[in-house]
Amino acid sequence: MEPTTFVLFGATGDLAKRKIYPALFNLFLDEKLPSSFSLIGLGRREWTDASFRANVEQSIREFSRRQGKDPSFVKQFVETFKYSVLDIGRQEDYVKLKHLIEQREEELHLPPNRLFYLSVGPEHFQPIAANIQESGLGSANGWKRLVIEKPFGHDLQSARVLNEKLSQAFTENEIFRIDHYLGKPMVQKLEALQQNNPVIQGLWNNRHIANVQITANETVGVEERAGYYDHVGALRDMFQNHMLQLLMMTAIQLPRESGFDEVQVKKKRIMEALEPLLKQDVAASVIRGQYAAGSVKGEPVRGYVDEPGVAAGTMNDTFIAAKLQIDDYFWRGVPFYIRTGKRMKEKSTRIVIEFKEQFTTSLTEKKDHAEANLLVIEMSPNESITLQLNAKDGSGTGAVKPVHIDIHPAGEQLPEAYENLIRDALAGDSTFFAHWDEVELAWAWAQPILEAFEENLVPLHLYEAGTYGPSESDELLAQDGFHWWFDANNEQTNALVSQEYSYHNSWNTLVSLQSTPDSWRKSC
Amino acid sequence: MEPTTFVLFGATGDLAKRKIYPALFNLFLDEKLPSSFSLIGLGRREWTDASFRANVEQSIREFSRRQGKDPSFVKQFVETFKYSVLDIGRQEDYVKLKHLIEQREEELHLPPNRLFYLSVGPEHFQPIAANIQESGLGSANGWKRLVIEKPFGHDLQSARVLNEKLSQAFTENEIFRIDHYLGKPMVQKLEALQQNNPVIQGLWNNRHIANVQITANETVGVEERAGYYDHVGALRDMFQNHMLQLLMMTAIQLPRESGFDEVQVKKKRIMEALEPLLKQDVAASVIRGQYAAGSVKGEPVRGYVDEPGVAAGTMNDTFIAAKLQIDDYFWRGVPFYIRTGKRMKEKSTRIVIEFKEQFTTSLTEKKDHAEANLLVIEMSPNESITLQLNAKDGSGTGAVKPVHIDIHPAGEQLPEAYENLIRDALAGDSTFFAHWDEVELAWAWAQPILEAFEENLVPLHLYEAGTYGPSESDELLAQDGFHWWFDANNEQTNALVSQEYSYHNSWNTLVSLQSTPDSWRKSC
Repeated sequence: MEPTTFVLFGATGDLAKRKIYPALFNLFLDEKLPSSFSLIGLGRREWTDASFRANVEQSIREFSRRQGKDPSFVKQFVETFKYSVLDIGRQEDYVKLKHLIEQREEELHLPPNRLFYLSVGPEHFQPIAANIQESGLGSANGWKRLVIEKPFGHDLQSARVLNEKLSQAFTENEIFRIDHYLGKPMVQKLEALQQNNPVIQGLWNNRHIANVQITANETVGVEERAGYYDHVGALRDMFQNHMLQLLMMTAIQLPRESGFDEVQVKKKRIMEALEPLLKQDVAASVIRGQYAAGSVKGEPVRGYVDEPGVAAGTMNDTFIAAKLQIDDYFWRGVPFYIRTGKRMKEKSTRIVIEFKEQFTTSLTEKKDHAEANLLVIEMSPNESITLQLNAKDGSGTGAVKPVHIDIHPAGEQLPEAYENLIRDALAGDSTFFAHWDEVELAWAWAQPILEAFEENLVPLHLYEAGTYGPSESDELLAQDGFHWWFDANNEQTNALVSQEYSYHNSWNTLVSLQSTPDSWRKSC
Repeated sequence: MEPTTFVLFGATGDLAKRKIYPALFNLFLDEKLPSSFSLIGLGRREWTDASFRANVEQSIREFSRRQGKDPSFVKQFVETFKYSVLDIGRQEDYVKLKHLIEQREEELHLPPNRLFYLSVGPEHFQPIAANIQESGLGSANGWKRLVIEKPFGHDLQSARVLNEKLSQAFTENEIFRIDHYLGKPMVQKLEALQQNNPVIQGLWNNRHIANVQITANETVGVEERAGYYDHVGALRDMFQNHMLQLLMMTAIQLPRESGFDEVQVKKKRIMEALEPLLKQDVAASVIRGQYAAGSVKGEPVRGYVDEPGVAAGTMNDTFIAAKLQIDDYFWRGVPFYIRTGKRMKEKSTRIVIEFKEQFTTSLTEKKDHAEANLLVIEMSPNESITLQLNAKDGSGTGAVKPVHIDIHPAGEQLPEAYENLIRDALAGDSTFFAHWDEVELAWAWAQPILEAFEENLVPLHLYEAGTYGPSESDELLAQDGFHWWFDANNEQTNALVSQEYSYHNSWNTLVSLQSTPDSWRKSC
């Protein structure tokens, strides 16, 4: 990894404190930072280097998963950190920044490799990028990179405008768009599994897969974000980005040794093959929901319309379920069901791959799905990859029942998403980032839905808080003969499975302690 | 399970003591015997009911895997057991037996269902069967069954003669031929896995499987059996029966809910599709070996020719390795490598299924097999079913390495082979028995090899005791680009795997404690 200067915009903010400093610290402990490394924090507050370092130390003590470590490591980690006051719109602050960067590069004998991490609101992306460009913060003798995080626009048009502007300062290869779902260890392990195992590759197509289910359910409501969320909704907040990225990562097929360029090409192909929806057809495959009053984990909660900050008569979506189809050789005929919602019965983020019966007879067709083979990639509340097979039990009666086989070894120290992503950005590896082609195609795919919602062509179903969303979401699968796996209110056979599954999960408790609560994040 | 009389010929013998009584006792404890059950032991010794029961009690104390149980259970188990002196050739002893059976049926209110278990040498099968027939020991008001164990003949001709004679007394449906390999829990679990999992079924063919390896290696030599073994050899003792049965059980494809009749049909089809060898071609695909002096587990051992009881200048085979091909839609092009030997480096019985690379490129082709996906069914020294996949390790470097995933849940109480088989015979379920068609086809397939050995058309390779057999056995696979998996002397990459594998095995130690040492058995 090449020596680098890490220039952090928004260094006094919440994301930096909760995620970026702890991630950098863990990379430091694991010796995964460049051997020579300079960090310059930027913010409007009038901090000194010393107060900045004290703040970083404090954030590590509060949010790092390795708090018990020798405090001298933290001191050593922050000792070269610098802080500079910067007003995003003031050209002279960038000139000052340029001098500071160059001065530090000289002091630390660094080549002019500069990573600009924009931990700020999206309205600041373009002005910062332009000022970086105009102030000559990039140097011909080294590389420059821009790291930003969604939202990348709020519809197809605005996303194109933003990208057009960023492109004037950074090339596509210099822009690293974080989708932190792509940094999650289970997503990366799924990718490695597909890529390195003939057994998985052989099964990874429409001959063997009956359907794919991608769920991201939250128990929280809009919290303090109502004013923002009411203009966004589940479709923009979760579906167009995280959920479609998970779909791409599930559907791509990669040979061993594939580089990030191949990943980029394959993800694009998936998005190109995603069957487009016509505005007038959206209602047939997209369910729009909004939570009504109910109770979550035994506590009564108000409905969305009664949340403070929500506009009267709002038609905003707090739940989306959709059926998607990829029209290519591998996936034709395999429905991808995706759902995401707030105020759901339980927090869960997972991908379930349900395999097809191979030899169906009049006998097997009568069976329900209790004994289906499943591959379950769980990202939340625990982190695991599990294969559900049917095995002869030990009773000696020859009874066959589902068993859950743990593919992801439990108890492993898992890096956090931001650790993976920051390390990759420093190394210039864009495998697990969102590339512009995908972002644009995802907006293009979502655009008819946005318009159909806007024009009220899709009914808004209220659902009781603390449930799995409107019953129409279940109906979406039922009409194809399927059901959402692992929903606690599904039929008895499913409950049996859930019970075993819980057992498995409790076994993984150690791992789950490391996982990241998503709810704090501003934008998901 | 219907009330039954269990008539045991050879009740004073070694197999009865070590296997049959402990198995029956375990079935009794698990309430898997018929509700009404009568056992009549037969032997030449002048035992009384009381001394017989005392002997059974003693054998359970010595050989049952559940010795710690309340002694009152053993008393209760044997309390209805009867003994009768029987000289196999004396007609009047069968008349006496008939009266005893009928008397006990009346006392215990049993229908005339009679299972005749012949725990005696094969030379007695025909006379006993004939005497059962002539004495009218079968009753029209109930069923009769004959349980026998190999050898079933010593070549194709003698097997046909034996079967012809048994057929005069029992129909094929009444004959239960034990191959105790079919009773092993891992073999039965493999069957259940294939039958109930689309994921396995989808992979179970020549598109996905590169080769199958079936190994049954022993560290023991001929022990006290030299006089017998010298006329038999590995081909007859192990290959024609156990090894070909394991091949059939690996290769058959069964839908869910298949009955034993379907298993029988499918096994026959596999044997019919097994490519026959011409006598003059045997040498190209069969390796014949005989152990020379060497050392096993650090102890020096003599060569086969120096074993007491072995004929001077013997050409007997103590090792066989062979490459077999099944010429059907599913298996065409998939070599089945089978080997079995005495005085090998380590005791191991296992089936390894090696999966094909799906997408080979110029890069992947350069790789060795270290990262192949494997399904490993291990019967000895431990009992496990393991899937070897490649997973991203936890180091965060993105390194991918083989992991072993345990499909068979460890620590489970496993029944012994004889428990499974006796229970099935009592229930009339012949799924895990050798049917005549298979036995005949197996002899027919082996016949050219027997003749080629006899006529010395195949070289006899000496191998040092304590190795993996002659190097020609390794060459047999190497010429197809494969190697025997898990042999300790294979290349370094394999050693790495073995190391992890050992770890896995040590985890399974609990299970292995229950496994059966095969070495004591007279005929394997």
